[in-house]
Amino acid sequence: MSGCNSAPAPTASEAPPAAKVQKKKVKKVEEVKGYAATKAGCENMAPISFTSYTPGDEDISFDIKFCGMCHTDVHFVNNDLENAVYPLCPGHELIGTVTAVGSKVTNFKLGDNIGVGCLVDACLECGPCGEGYEQYCEKGMTMTYGYPKKHGRSGPDDGCMTMGGYSNKCVVHKKFGVKVPAGADLPRIAPLLCAGVTVFEPLVANGCKEGGKKIGIVGLGGLGMMGIKLAAAMGNAVTAISTSSSKEAAAKACGATSFVVSSDAEAMKAATGSLDLILDTVAAQHEIGPLLDMLNAKGKLVLQGLLTKPVDLNTPQLLFSRKCVTASLIGGMPRTQEMMDICMEKKVFADVEVVSKEKITECLLAMQKSLGVVKRFVIDCSTF
Amino acid sequence: MSGCNSAPAPTASEAPPAAKVQKKKVKKVEEVKGYAATKAGCENMAPISFTSYTPGDEDISFDIKFCGMCHTDVHFVNNDLENAVYPLCPGHELIGTVTAVGSKVTNFKLGDNIGVGCLVDACLECGPCGEGYEQYCEKGMTMTYGYPKKHGRSGPDDGCMTMGGYSNKCVVHKKFGVKVPAGADLPRIAPLLCAGVTVFEPLVANGCKEGGKKIGIVGLGGLGMMGIKLAAAMGNAVTAISTSSSKEAAAKACGATSFVVSSDAEAMKAATGSLDLILDTVAAQHEIGPLLDMLNAKGKLVLQGLLTKPVDLNTPQLLFSRKCVTASLIGGMPRTQEMMDICMEKKVFADVEVVSKEKITECLLAMQKSLGVVKRFVIDCSTF
Repeated sequence: MSGCNSAPAPTASEAPPAAKVQKKKVKKVEEVKGYAATKAGCENMAPISFTSYTPGDEDISFDIKFCGMCHTDVHFVNNDLENAVYPLCPGHELIGTVTAVGSKVTNFKLGDNIGVGCLVDACLECGPCGEGYEQYCEKGMTMTYGYPKKHGRSGPDDGCMTMGGYSNKCVVHKKFGVKVPAGADLPRIAPLLCAGVTVFEPLVANGCKEGGKKIGIVGLGGLGMMGIKLAAAMGNAVTAISTSSSKEAAAKACGATSFVVSSDAEAMKAATGSLDLILDTVAAQHEIGPLLDMLNAKGKLVLQGLLTKPVDLNTPQLLFSRKCVTASLIGGMPRTQEMMDICMEKKVFADVEVVSKEKITECLLAMQKSLGVVKRFVIDCSTF
Repeated sequence: MSGCNSAPAPTASEAPPAAKVQKKKVKKVEEVKGYAATKAGCENMAPISFTSYTPGDEDISFDIKFCGMCHTDVHFVNNDLENAVYPLCPGHELIGTVTAVGSKVTNFKLGDNIGVGCLVDACLECGPCGEGYEQYCEKGMTMTYGYPKKHGRSGPDDGCMTMGGYSNKCVVHKKFGVKVPAGADLPRIAPLLCAGVTVFEPLVANGCKEGGKKIGIVGLGGLGMMGIKLAAAMGNAVTAISTSSSKEAAAKACGATSFVVSSDAEAMKAATGSLDLILDTVAAQHEIGPLLDMLNAKGKLVLQGLLTKPVDLNTPQLLFSRKCVTASLIGGMPRTQEMMDICMEKKVFADVEVVSKEKITECLLAMQKSLGVVKRFVIDCSTF
């Protein structure tokens, strides 16, 4: 991948002073500084500089202010999914300030806050795209980092991969920008762009937006804690389910009303049939049978972690009460905006620790060691 | 279970001439003749006689005209589910003519056709019962045969099990009778009461009543063929999926527009992502992964067979396109009536072979040998 993301620096005519660019909406590439994995392994993060692609009429340029660190970043950096291309600049929880907009951009203006989550392109023509589920694009979504740029709205298909938010500048197509109100607490909002919408999507898809449901949240890392907050904020009763009791106080502080230790057979039995919906955020291999027992008739188990080995499914557990096993992956753009708006309205934010670029490796290694980091690390991108 | 279903014969005052009973709605037990398994094994069917329970104000007495033979009968007779109590009189596709109604029965009158399916009681108080899903009753449904009479509407709880439709008379609570129009082709309607509603329920639950969906039906026995008929009659495009090509003509005659042999890797690959919904009626152990591949994004696999061993679930198959695995068991009473009405309107009937009582053992053994009996055997209950 040598040569990728190393477009020539702009000439003077292409890159007049910033003020002039913004006023005239002149297309302009940007010098970007960030951190990328040079090869597999969290210890292999190093400074990188590259140029953004040339923004088109429908593109928005922005300075990245903060970027959340997601467990997915660890998977990509480590090449756990065996599809990583290096250098790999992670980060799909970007939040920043608009510095230029193309002539056909009407939803953002200079100085606006903007968020970018996991998606930067999709075909926008297939059935799922038409319904706002770009993450299930039949031709394949383009994720914010480490993905080929095949649909044309994330830069020209130059054989290079998309570059993420562990950096200080970004260009994004107007369709994939999320509006964030002025004055928002940007570091605490950044993680909403992945963790927030990931749990919000199945909550909304399963009728929890109006509240009144009994919801179980399994796995109390950043995703699970966000699930508790959102489900509770929308008026649902939340049972937090964890392998250990150590997170009970934190879960209850987020809004859980009950706490069940999954190794406590008696507590699990007492919770039989008590839940309408379970969001299972655990990415480590585990049994799903005990969770199915916790659902009531017609209840649904939504898997959110990537389990690389098959799990056993005892189908009579489904048959005699029409329970359902499904999964949910991030969220599409309409849902992401809806999530952002609701989080602003209900004041749902992530619990974060803001870190400088020097801490990136340390944070990735901490995340790698523990699936259960409760606070989300958020990079201060002004430090690049 | 000796002594069960052997209530004393009615006295003269309890059992006046039939005409008088019907007119005055006097409660009356009935002498019933039928066939029952005396012990586990399809070869152990023998004549039985017993008395019905004393009908209450809300009960309907009827002469059973026909009773469909369902593969479930084989499971119960053989004690495959290890819950059989003998003597066991199977049959949950009863169709007959009303001979007496209690004083509080307003939905049936003397001489009406009446159907009884798999259910004869449930608590009628829990959430699922309140929504018309009595089959998922939180306190446990009472099935038409082989079940304890615990809710009070299928006779007094005398420790005996319910007795099914391999017999000539029945009493049922008004809530569990299905209205069947006069002049209906009773033998061809009987199987709708189990097979019909079993496939109708997941079709309606998944938005197929208005047509326009792409539906796969796996397993082309009586259930699968009925699924094809109903799905096609409601205006959906149906792909029949079978382990062998031998049933292609029959499937297409039922309304399937495509036929895929599941062992044909090329055909299966060509069908990738082509279906919105799959009803999997196969009761033999099998893999579900290849079926999940046939679904499009947000597609659903509905298991309808009882698989006694766990199946492997590759959760990434769900995660990257929000597919769903669920199951569906028979149908509740409102859905059963709805199914009956739609079948009458659209002239959807089962393909049946009417048999006399002497053929019962032979038919059960034939069904036991082959999961793929296409025609439904229906007992002429006037032969008891």
